[in-house]
Amino acid sequence: MLGLFIVILASCCSCTASADVSCGYHSCNLGEAEKLNIHLVPHTHDDVGWLKTVDQYYYGSNSSIVIAGVQYILDSVIPQLLSDPSKRFIYVEIAFFSRWWEEQNDAMKENVKQLVQEGRLEFILGGWCMNDEASTHYNAIIDQMTHGLRYLNDTFGACARPRVAWQIDPFGHSREQASLFAQMGFDGLFFGRLDYEDKENREKIRNMEEIWRGSQSLNSPHADLFTGVDENGYNPPDGFCFDAFCRDQPIMDNQALEDYNVDEKVEKFVAAALKQANHFQTNHIMMTMGSDFEYSNANVWYKNLDKLIKYVNAADKNMTLFYSTPSCYLYALNHANVMWNVKSDDFFPYADAPHQYWTGYFTSRPGLKGYVRESNKYLQVCNQLETFMHFKSASHTLTSSTKVLRDAMGVAQHHDAVSGTSKQHVANDYAKRLFEGREECNKVISTSFTGSNEQLIFCDYLNITLCEFTQSSNQFVVLVYNPLARDVSNYLRIPVNCDDHHVFVVEDLVTSTRLTVQLVPVSEATLSVRRNRGNANCELIFLAKLPALGHNTFQVAKHKSSKSISLLKTKVKKVNNEDVTITNEFYKVKFDGNTGLMASIENIASGITVPVKQDMLWYNASMGNDVSKQQSGAYIFRPNVSTPFQCSNGKPQLSVIKGSNLLVQEVYQKFSDWVWQVIRLYAGKKQIEVEWTVGPIPVHDKWGKEVISRYETNLETNGYFYTDSNGREILERRKDYRPTWHLNQSESVAGNYYPVNSRIYIHDNQVQLTVLNDRSQGGSSLSTGQLELMVHRRLLGEDSKGVGEALNETGQFGDGLITRGKHWLLLDTVTLSAKQHRLLAEEIYMSPLVAFQHHAPSTTHESHITSPLPSNIHLLTLSTTTDGGFLVRVEHQFEKNEDSTLSKPATVSLKNLFTDFQVSSCEELLLGGNAFKQDVTRLSWETTEKLKFVPGVDVVSNFEKPYDVTNGLHQQLDSCDVTLEPMQIRTFLIK
Amino acid sequence: MLGLFIVILASCCSCTASADVSCGYHSCNLGEAEKLNIHLVPHTHDDVGWLKTVDQYYYGSNSSIVIAGVQYILDSVIPQLLSDPSKRFIYVEIAFFSRWWEEQNDAMKENVKQLVQEGRLEFILGGWCMNDEASTHYNAIIDQMTHGLRYLNDTFGACARPRVAWQIDPFGHSREQASLFAQMGFDGLFFGRLDYEDKENREKIRNMEEIWRGSQSLNSPHADLFTGVDENGYNPPDGFCFDAFCRDQPIMDNQALEDYNVDEKVEKFVAAALKQANHFQTNHIMMTMGSDFEYSNANVWYKNLDKLIKYVNAADKNMTLFYSTPSCYLYALNHANVMWNVKSDDFFPYADAPHQYWTGYFTSRPGLKGYVRESNKYLQVCNQLETFMHFKSASHTLTSSTKVLRDAMGVAQHHDAVSGTSKQHVANDYAKRLFEGREECNKVISTSFTGSNEQLIFCDYLNITLCEFTQSSNQFVVLVYNPLARDVSNYLRIPVNCDDHHVFVVEDLVTSTRLTVQLVPVSEATLSVRRNRGNANCELIFLAKLPALGHNTFQVAKHKSSKSISLLKTKVKKVNNEDVTITNEFYKVKFDGNTGLMASIENIASGITVPVKQDMLWYNASMGNDVSKQQSGAYIFRPNVSTPFQCSNGKPQLSVIKGSNLLVQEVYQKFSDWVWQVIRLYAGKKQIEVEWTVGPIPVHDKWGKEVISRYETNLETNGYFYTDSNGREILERRKDYRPTWHLNQSESVAGNYYPVNSRIYIHDNQVQLTVLNDRSQGGSSLSTGQLELMVHRRLLGEDSKGVGEALNETGQFGDGLITRGKHWLLLDTVTLSAKQHRLLAEEIYMSPLVAFQHHAPSTTHESHITSPLPSNIHLLTLSTTTDGGFLVRVEHQFEKNEDSTLSKPATVSLKNLFTDFQVSSCEELLLGGNAFKQDVTRLSWETTEKLKFVPGVDVVSNFEKPYDVTNGLHQQLDSCDVTLEPMQIRTFLIK
Repeated sequence: MLGLFIVILASCCSCTASADVSCGYHSCNLGEAEKLNIHLVPHTHDDVGWLKTVDQYYYGSNSSIVIAGVQYILDSVIPQLLSDPSKRFIYVEIAFFSRWWEEQNDAMKENVKQLVQEGRLEFILGGWCMNDEASTHYNAIIDQMTHGLRYLNDTFGACARPRVAWQIDPFGHSREQASLFAQMGFDGLFFGRLDYEDKENREKIRNMEEIWRGSQSLNSPHADLFTGVDENGYNPPDGFCFDAFCRDQPIMDNQALEDYNVDEKVEKFVAAALKQANHFQTNHIMMTMGSDFEYSNANVWYKNLDKLIKYVNAADKNMTLFYSTPSCYLYALNHANVMWNVKSDDFFPYADAPHQYWTGYFTSRPGLKGYVRESNKYLQVCNQLETFMHFKSASHTLTSSTKVLRDAMGVAQHHDAVSGTSKQHVANDYAKRLFEGREECNKVISTSFTGSNEQLIFCDYLNITLCEFTQSSNQFVVLVYNPLARDVSNYLRIPVNCDDHHVFVVEDLVTSTRLTVQLVPVSEATLSVRRNRGNANCELIFLAKLPALGHNTFQVAKHKSSKSISLLKTKVKKVNNEDVTITNEFYKVKFDGNTGLMASIENIASGITVPVKQDMLWYNASMGNDVSKQQSGAYIFRPNVSTPFQCSNGKPQLSVIKGSNLLVQEVYQKFSDWVWQVIRLYAGKKQIEVEWTVGPIPVHDKWGKEVISRYETNLETNGYFYTDSNGREILERRKDYRPTWHLNQSESVAGNYYPVNSRIYIHDNQVQLTVLNDRSQGGSSLSTGQLELMVHRRLLGEDSKGVGEALNETGQFGDGLITRGKHWLLLDTVTLSAKQHRLLAEEIYMSPLVAFQHHAPSTTHESHITSPLPSNIHLLTLSTTTDGGFLVRVEHQFEKNEDSTLSKPATVSLKNLFTDFQVSSCEELLLGGNAFKQDVTRLSWETTEKLKFVPGVDVVSNFEKPYDVTNGLHQQLDSCDVTLEPMQIRTFLIK
Repeated sequence: MLGLFIVILASCCSCTASADVSCGYHSCNLGEAEKLNIHLVPHTHDDVGWLKTVDQYYYGSNSSIVIAGVQYILDSVIPQLLSDPSKRFIYVEIAFFSRWWEEQNDAMKENVKQLVQEGRLEFILGGWCMNDEASTHYNAIIDQMTHGLRYLNDTFGACARPRVAWQIDPFGHSREQASLFAQMGFDGLFFGRLDYEDKENREKIRNMEEIWRGSQSLNSPHADLFTGVDENGYNPPDGFCFDAFCRDQPIMDNQALEDYNVDEKVEKFVAAALKQANHFQTNHIMMTMGSDFEYSNANVWYKNLDKLIKYVNAADKNMTLFYSTPSCYLYALNHANVMWNVKSDDFFPYADAPHQYWTGYFTSRPGLKGYVRESNKYLQVCNQLETFMHFKSASHTLTSSTKVLRDAMGVAQHHDAVSGTSKQHVANDYAKRLFEGREECNKVISTSFTGSNEQLIFCDYLNITLCEFTQSSNQFVVLVYNPLARDVSNYLRIPVNCDDHHVFVVEDLVTSTRLTVQLVPVSEATLSVRRNRGNANCELIFLAKLPALGHNTFQVAKHKSSKSISLLKTKVKKVNNEDVTITNEFYKVKFDGNTGLMASIENIASGITVPVKQDMLWYNASMGNDVSKQQSGAYIFRPNVSTPFQCSNGKPQLSVIKGSNLLVQEVYQKFSDWVWQVIRLYAGKKQIEVEWTVGPIPVHDKWGKEVISRYETNLETNGYFYTDSNGREILERRKDYRPTWHLNQSESVAGNYYPVNSRIYIHDNQVQLTVLNDRSQGGSSLSTGQLELMVHRRLLGEDSKGVGEALNETGQFGDGLITRGKHWLLLDTVTLSAKQHRLLAEEIYMSPLVAFQHHAPSTTHESHITSPLPSNIHLLTLSTTTDGGFLVRVEHQFEKNEDSTLSKPATVSLKNLFTDFQVSSCEELLLGGNAFKQDVTRLSWETTEKLKFVPGVDVVSNFEKPYDVTNGLHQQLDSCDVTLEPMQIRTFLIK
């Protein structure tokens, strides 16, 4: 047992105590007390795909687009570092580093290890990528960071653990990201992009660096993160870009040659340094000496930096320049006697100039965004099943099957991937990688169910009622796996062919009971979207009850029986100019026959009825105007006028399926040939499902279009609305307002857009309208009682932010991409809303996985958990690790005070939680899984709040003791009882 | 004496015998006998100025034009070579290398020395630059090669001696260059550019490599040079450019990543190799893997070449790839059992496609070309005087003063410098460097004359009668230095002010005799050119008799005397419609009053009268047409139509100065406001001087203009004409004809242009018309009896050959550069012509140097030579070396059979030649001064001529013995008697 423990320890922290002396902060140059200390940080920013695919960037191929080859960067930097101990370099993106590392010989690997050990090569951030913060889900963020951080730990040991998070390029910064970073043990975060007014203001008041409170639920400082804004984004000061591909003048110091420019360069640099120092509080400043894909010929940078250091230091300007790293700069700040301000809001939306709001990418490429979100579920399912399989058969190779999807998901979180801001061919590559990862996962899933090499059938197009297998089979089995650690029931919709008048029967194989089913004809919208693919003409609907962390099996069979048809097949009725109401036990939703639009929602139990008008509209994308040349593009949202146009020409055409004893009632709206909607009420389900279908967005009128779904109510919301942060905590938003500076609003629509990863809501004192979504979207509330989400956009202009392509997704048929998604509406009292949207949001992003087979598996119904978790606890992670361990993450999924019951602390015992194995030990790790929590002491910071923590209890001053010994794991080794405070996530390496 | 000898030996050849084993050819990989051996030659082509100045290229500044920094190339390549003994690199341009070398620390220098010693870094060519071959003078070529080659020897010893000449980029190749290379000890020459038809033909008949006979006078093989054409210019085969700035796909060999392309790359490379092999005779081919300023990030190249080598060699294609150098390739060819063809013509003109004749640069930037030619004289004067000074005062620092001009002249010979094909700002930089070098030389000259720090006054604008000093002084001294080793007399023309009716007296200070003088009013053309600068209104003309290799002094004084004016001041008479004849004792030149043009020339002594019509005309520069889009540009000459336009509107206006007892008779022709001419006959001078003044060439009509001076005679020349090669041997030219292939002439004018460095002539059986020029120009004979030289060009188009600027020299006044130059005409029998043009050409390029002073120097008349050399021997070089030695070059300046007397061998004794010092030893060197002739054995080649030489006498087979032991120096150590065969140049290190 002890031996085992040591092995695990070694896998996480192979550095011994003596190594600590030479790694971490101890190799830092802290400068000179009486001088301005200038930390020069040589770095490269390597997008994990953008203008080229990640592999093209790695190799440096496809150079007609841009010359950039990451292999050469690492090739080039290492010899520079080896040749001069004073030099430093940081590397960030493990998706690239890992590719490079695998190609190196042993001698090079030893060299690199030595450099890492000595702090000369330092990994910063250390995620698989530098993830987007606006359209990413926290589950995927944690996974991609874990993937990278654990790779570093596996490869280099504890010395390589990044101390600093480095989000220099993402276009806005989420508070949840800060919270997660804090929980990952990062001591600080630096980033480059924030609102230009915010930055100007911060420069003026020397507030470029502060403590960001990442959570309103977690006790400070668990989610507190020192956060600094880079003076120059992530670029060097003007005139000092010395990359091989830069065009600034080099330092020419041979007086015998023409163009000697040392004096001029020194003078210019000193001016830049003094200007920067004037924005910051200490006598230390950091300069980011690098940029996109720079250092492919590191000598050019270093040679000129060497000269810069030499000549400025010699110039007697009371400043000292030296090579440094962000963590050393941070460490120097930590030694400064400064009280830092505290910030509790976030950095959305980002504008780099008036009229240039980067709020378009909240929605850009909705198809890709949806695919990424869905693939997250695949990865979790795959991780879970792989873990179970390991215990069923220890010979099963761990993680090799999931690695493809882990890599792909890591890449897809990049800030030009899921953000939708890459070139089209790169977006295709992201999707292809996810597809290939899912194909590998499908094998895991198949093996898990079949116990053999027999493959299950997976249908990726169930959402458009397209499945070759089910539409052509007379009898088949539906396997449904529920990755949630609680029981759920879900309505499944299976594409079938009902032209030949058969009867359909669904049996629960365990109880052999027949299930109630409903056959719904394939809608006009779906037929349009399917474009002659497939011949299923009905959706077979039934409610699948699923065990926690387990699966259930359903058999579908067709029998000829003319009698049964009328019973099963639902009629669709066209509606003209008359009001329509659908209902279930929870809601009544009424549609106005005159407008064709939703008119009101009644929550039957709560007795609330609110007029709710919902419409599909589009903003005309700006192509620039007299006020500003800014066009709407992949990044930027800029409507030409603030009033959107109606998608319907007149009013939507209504149809309805309703009646008693139906599993689902549906209202169909056809707004136009390219905008459709279905509003559904399922029996027993307490949400109103709105399935929207948009596309191909027509552009023959030369107008780019940004399509929104807008809800108008009579709630007196006064400009306030609420959006989630990466699917977790909720932030209050207010129209034309920023909490930390006086906003001069230049875009009344785009400047009020915020990322909506999982939900947006408005409320008055009593009533809350919540909209959950199935992928990240931009959303806002532009007038009282109103709420809107942008669901799709197709543009003809280009926003001049680098991607160089119009966001004009033509799709596989060439006429424009069609996207279909869902919103779930909740209308209830404010106090009752949280417990609904928390659980429903969990069910959306972890919806059951459906597969098909000819015959039933041996185990038709199984749960891998001994008892379901309480509904406020989410099993966030259950996965194997590359070195034979198992990661478990459990999460309290309610905020403090959000729900009277569910916001209370909750406890789960891991020890006997799983049916497949006994947990014998639970070592608590940092959130990123790359270090034992007890081994890590974060730097502490004095704040202007005068917040003081009792040493040894909550936070430790002088960074000498762990900040969270109360949660240290050794006390819990035996019980593995894990108590979770609201919004807390805890990570364990289990055995 | 012996000790001294050893020291000198070491300075030239510091490599010991044992070093020979590891340097030179011995490190070569000679491949595998049964395979196709592919010599991959990593190389960079670093223009010594072109789009950027040489210093900008060195540092990599001014990157808005192009990113290219030579410092980084050498920085980058050396570590690559050090890391892998199989890798090779060649470096060429010492102007760049020497800059880099001076910046290196000792450790790096030791590393580089080791690499050189082992043949891993090999210097090829080793000139200060890769000189142009069309507009360069042989004196400057030899100097720039010597400057580079001796630098290599001084720095690295004998092992660094380049074996191969490498003229990969110059736009045509002169036979004299081949001859000089042979005499410099090169074993071979490779180049990249030759006529496209020539190349196609050579590929077809596998004649890409042959023996080039560089001289018709020197005995074979002294001027024979193995010469090879590079298959791809100097680039890699299509698709295999792996430079950091190239856009070809890298080799992507990780099958786990996208875009794996090894198979495709191998297949494509094998095809390229087989295609190339089909053009060559042996089972060895060379591929130039590099291009302009490549290898700044050498890893990118080498990493992909490593993969290419690995995968092609592994692919079992019966070929083997390896890193090699041109000399190793040459060595492999030398081992092949092949008889090589012999070529005796040259490679002018160059066309890369129909209508694309690179014959414009023969004339481009006539001002710069003239300045370079004149600066050559300054450098020779400076070298000579520095040598004399050393012996007068040993404390004088050797070569430090001349180095600036040596460097500048080295740079100016570059194939985009004197060629006129650089951008304007770079051309300005070349001129500035020359100016600075001359300023340094002026100090040497001043010290030499004054024996103190007192500076002489130098007037650079004497040619436009502009000299602040002389025009404003009443009394001054003219110092005139003659750099020729024979007595000469020259008419001087000194700007003076004669408005105030003074009398001018010139005295010979030695004999105190007054000289005959003539005062000529400043011409209308000169006034126009001077543009209100200066107020000299007369030219004071007198004949200066000058001692061989020495100076004379003349005092000029003004006295008021009204009586003398009429005697001295010549009248200019306007001429309308009447014939005019000027004459001296040798010539009568008649002008037709009706046409205003020269009509005939009579050689009085020979009794020959030939009708000679001379006119100034211009070709309309093509802006592209339906036949070809090719425009006339800095490189390309392409007239729009083949008939030029007259510069005069109607006829030139004539004026004349004539009368008895005049020193000079002059006819003035004003063709237009921008074209003028003076035809002069000086008393006692056997040449007709034609001074042309052209500019500012008007372009407001949007027509670029290429101005020619055309002579039409009744000589029956049948398309034949003769031009010099770099100022030395004469080549026969023939209209619309090439000696080595059947020409398809696409440009009837431009395709018949050839470089004229010093002279062009036509003749029939009896009579020869010779035109000498003072700078390189393009010239031709487009119809029988006709001869033309292009003197100036100003273009609005661009020829798309890379320079990216129209050759539109606007000059310092912004309206267009004015150029003035001279042609000297000779009309005589064919047999009597050579001795005239040989000596006159020598007097043009080595005309006396004129300086001024207030008072006479202590030594007013001095010759540094004990007795003048015979007129067929030219003292080509007398200079110090950087290591304390002295270089002497003597040259037979007549071709074999050119003159019945002067073409005979001639002997000069160096021992007692100089008055300032005694020569005690004369070690004969290679022409480049970088090795003792006796130590060098050139490779020998079998030719299809079956030329066989008696071993030990003339040539040695199997490259085991010196090829020229008869001229070995040890036999001559005592006498220093040097015998020169026609056109032979011999180089000695003297003590």
